[in-house]
Parts: sequence; C-alpha cells; structure tokens
Amino acid sequence: MNMIDPAAPALPQASVTVGTLHGVGLGPGDPELLTVKAVRLIQASPVLAYFAKKGRRGNARTIVDPWIAPGTEELPLLYPVTTEVHFADEGYVRELSGFYEESAERIALELLAGRDVALVAEGDPMFYGSFMHLFIRLKDRFRVTVTAGVTGMAGCWTAAGLPITWGDDVLTVLPGTLPADALTQRLRATDAAVIMKLGTNFPKVRAAIEAAGLLGRAVYVERGTMAGEKVLPLKDKTDDAAPYFSLILVPGEGRRP
Amino acid sequence: MNMIDPAAPALPQASVTVGTLHGVGLGPGDPELLTVKAVRLIQASPVLAYFAKKGRRGNARTIVDPWIAPGTEELPLLYPVTTEVHFADEGYVRELSGFYEESAERIALELLAGRDVALVAEGDPMFYGSFMHLFIRLKDRFRVTVTAGVTGMAGCWTAAGLPITWGDDVLTVLPGTLPADALTQRLRATDAAVIMKLGTNFPKVRAAIEAAGLLGRAVYVERGTMAGEKVLPLKDKTDDAAPYFSLILVPGEGRRP
Repeated sequence: MNMIDPAAPALPQASVTVGTLHGVGLGPGDPELLTVKAVRLIQASPVLAYFAKKGRRGNARTIVDPWIAPGTEELPLLYPVTTEVHFADEGYVRELSGFYEESAERIALELLAGRDVALVAEGDPMFYGSFMHLFIRLKDRFRVTVTAGVTGMAGCWTAAGLPITWGDDVLTVLPGTLPADALTQRLRATDAAVIMKLGTNFPKVRAAIEAAGLLGRAVYVERGTMAGEKVLPLKDKTDDAAPYFSLILVPGEGRRP
Repeated sequence: MNMIDPAAPALPQASVTVGTLHGVGLGPGDPELLTVKAVRLIQASPVLAYFAKKGRRGNARTIVDPWIAPGTEELPLLYPVTTEVHFADEGYVRELSGFYEESAERIALELLAGRDVALVAEGDPMFYGSFMHLFIRLKDRFRVTVTAGVTGMAGCWTAAGLPITWGDDVLTVLPGTLPADALTQRLRATDAAVIMKLGTNFPKVRAAIEAAGLLGRAVYVERGTMAGEKVLPLKDKTDDAAPYFSLILVPGEGRRP
C-alpha cells in the first residue's frame, strides 16, 4: 500500500519509509530456544511489542528479556480481561475484538512512523497464537514477516524425554475445552495426542483420558524447558491444578525398527 | 553409568570422562532457524553425526553447514536402503534395525573415548525423527540431552502465511501412507490438518482431500523456508511430484474475535 500521494507537496513525512512488522516466535520458554533469526529480528527492530495480562509482565516479555537491545521501545499490548470468561460470551468476544483492533492500530502507527516492530509470541506465531489476530488485520496494509518458533508442545515432549510420534503414527492436538465425550472419542481414534488448554478443564480431561484407556500412557508436563519444570505420569498427579504452561502428552507407539 | 572401576590401577584411559550425546533439532531448513542452543551445542561438540542416504550429502548436513566449527570430526550415518521399500517388508525392517544398532555403536565408541557427539536432525528430534531410534538405544547407557527444534510443518505453514489453528481448533497430523478411506474419514473429522510423507502417496492423498470436500482449502508447500520454496493452492497443482520436503496443509477456521 502506498501511503504517500506522489502529487502532494514534499512534506517531511514523505521521506519516511513505512516499517515492517515481524511476527517472531519465542519458543517454549527457555530463552536459548529462540532461533538465530528471532534474535536478529528482535535486536534489529526499534520497537518490541508483546501481549500480556494487565498488571503482569507477561510470559513473552520474560522469555525475550535476555535478548532485548538497549534503547528498544516497548509496546505492551494488555488484554482487557484478566479472569477467564467463556468464549461463548458475546460481550467478551466484542471486547477482545476491540482489543485486537486497537492493538493493530497502535502497531500501525509505529509502522507508519517508519519504525519496524517485532511482535513476539510464545511458541510458534501461527499455531494457536494471539499474533494471528493482528496478522490478519495488518498483513494487507503493511509488509509483514513471520518467523517460526519451537512450539510449547515440542518443548514439553522434549522435557519429558518422550518421542511423540513414530513411523506412521497419527498425532491429534486437542484443546481441553472440548466436551468430555468428544475428547474420549478422539483420544480412542488417534495414535498419539497432545492436550492443551488445561486450566479448569483439567479434571474433565483426566476423566476423558481414563475413559479412553490411556491413563497409563499419559504424561503431565508443566513449564517445559523453563524454571520450575515438572514432568510426571498423569496417574501420579494427585491435584487438579494446571497452570497456563501445562499440557498432557500421550506418546505414540508406532514402528520402531 | 560409571565406566571406571575405582580399584583398578591408574591406566591412561581411567582419566577419560565419558562424553554426552546431544540430539539437536535443526529446524525446517533455513539455517537461521536453528535455535541459539542448537548452534552452541553443535559448535561445542567435537563430533558431528548426521543421517544421510548413501552417495548423498544429506539435508541435515546441508542445513548445519554454516554452523560447523573448524576441526569438527564428521560421522555420517548412511542408510543402507536408497530406494523406498515398503515398511511391511521384513528384510527391510531387519536391515534398518541393524543399521540403527551399528550407528548407535559408532556413536557409543566416540562417547566412550570421551568425545561429546552432536547428532543433528531436521525439524524436531522427537517428532517422527530418525534420532529417536538411536535415543532409545543409548539413553540408558549414556548422558543424552535433546534440544527441541522448529518442525518442518511449522516452517511450511509460516512459508505459506497460513495460521494453522485458531481458538479451539483440533489439529490432526496424518502420514500420507494411510489408506485413502482412513485419510478421508480423519480429514472429515478434524478442523485443521497437516499431511506429511507425500512422495508416491501424493495422488491418493489428493483424492482423499477431494473426497473430504477440502480441496478448496488445502495448500501444497514444498521446501518451506529453503531455497526453491514453492507454495500453491492444492487445486492449482497440476503434477503428482512431491519430494521429501513437501506437505499439504488444511488450515483451521476457528474462532477469530
């Protein structure tokens, strides 16, 4: 998109080159699991944008901390909702949509002022990422690059020392928000599984895994690759607490020559 | 495992510390998509091991090329089978098993001589990786670390500019080796899909996608993040050629506030 009318008088801003938005994956949590490209783009961008909950520093900001160049301008994008509201709630969807619109406009202002913005995201930006909501709002107006990252689930199966898929195994990635019956049915039909978005869904997910006959194979991982990492067989987990950075793995058992 | 008998006379080899095996993910192909940790371990390990087909340099060796420290000893592990034989073939399974045993022993010799070995693997080492076959053979005898990597599929959906999963989308990863009916059925039951291992399975996979009513949504990606990258809607692909580094993506269409 050409922001400058060639017939207009030569105002100072006519010489400004519009900036580029870099969507940058930060990987699963260990700052050493950023890619070389991620580090380069973060250090070359004058503006660092990241999502966080109001009143928190946020996980993305914590992961990227060792890599920020001095003088970088920070643009925190603060979610308006701090307690979980159900996604079926219309008011919530409207509020979230407004938040993404406003965040996109804040980034657009930086880009129009000629500054590149690195919008960093935990894991991989195109895999269940908040980044995607700004990507679809900005990709047709600005130059946008995306840098893939190590997913949270890869960080977790690595932390657990668990090869997740062998040979011709089918892998199913399931959000814990699905109804219990749907979870059980899908777990029965797959070779390997990753169940994300546990939180308050944890007791339901555990019951679904048990109903599918997979309790003995399932492994719970919390904060994989980060400080405070926890790995334990799901059957040995005695409480129902499952924070944001947690998931359950059911490793495949396919062909092993 | 303690290799040294404390009561034995002080022979020269008694001072050798057994080496560590590092399984290191190389990411989808672009050498800049190695993690910082991967680069550090590769440069710190005196031995670099990698799989390749006989007579070829191999993709892993090509990806890692810019990062190899001078003086690194190379240990290529050459697959005995260069043409595709069906996995149901008993002789093939036996031959492959022998190859993994022999490869594990070659690495064990380096470790016993006190040298750390970086065994590098395309993508993520624990996700359909040949590394896993050596991991299970060596993990109880030696110290083994694993470094997660960006998967090939993440490289491909990023190359295509395609967010793959939104909100509560279910993602299914399918090998193209499955029968056509099974592919169609699983594609109908998922929100998003990645179909790998195309090769000679390509026409069957394409037919299964069409039967599932997903031809309009599917995208073919070849050599994502590498030189010679190709991205095109599957419906526009007119030939049946699908090399090793290719897959098909069906992006999810979940919640987008």
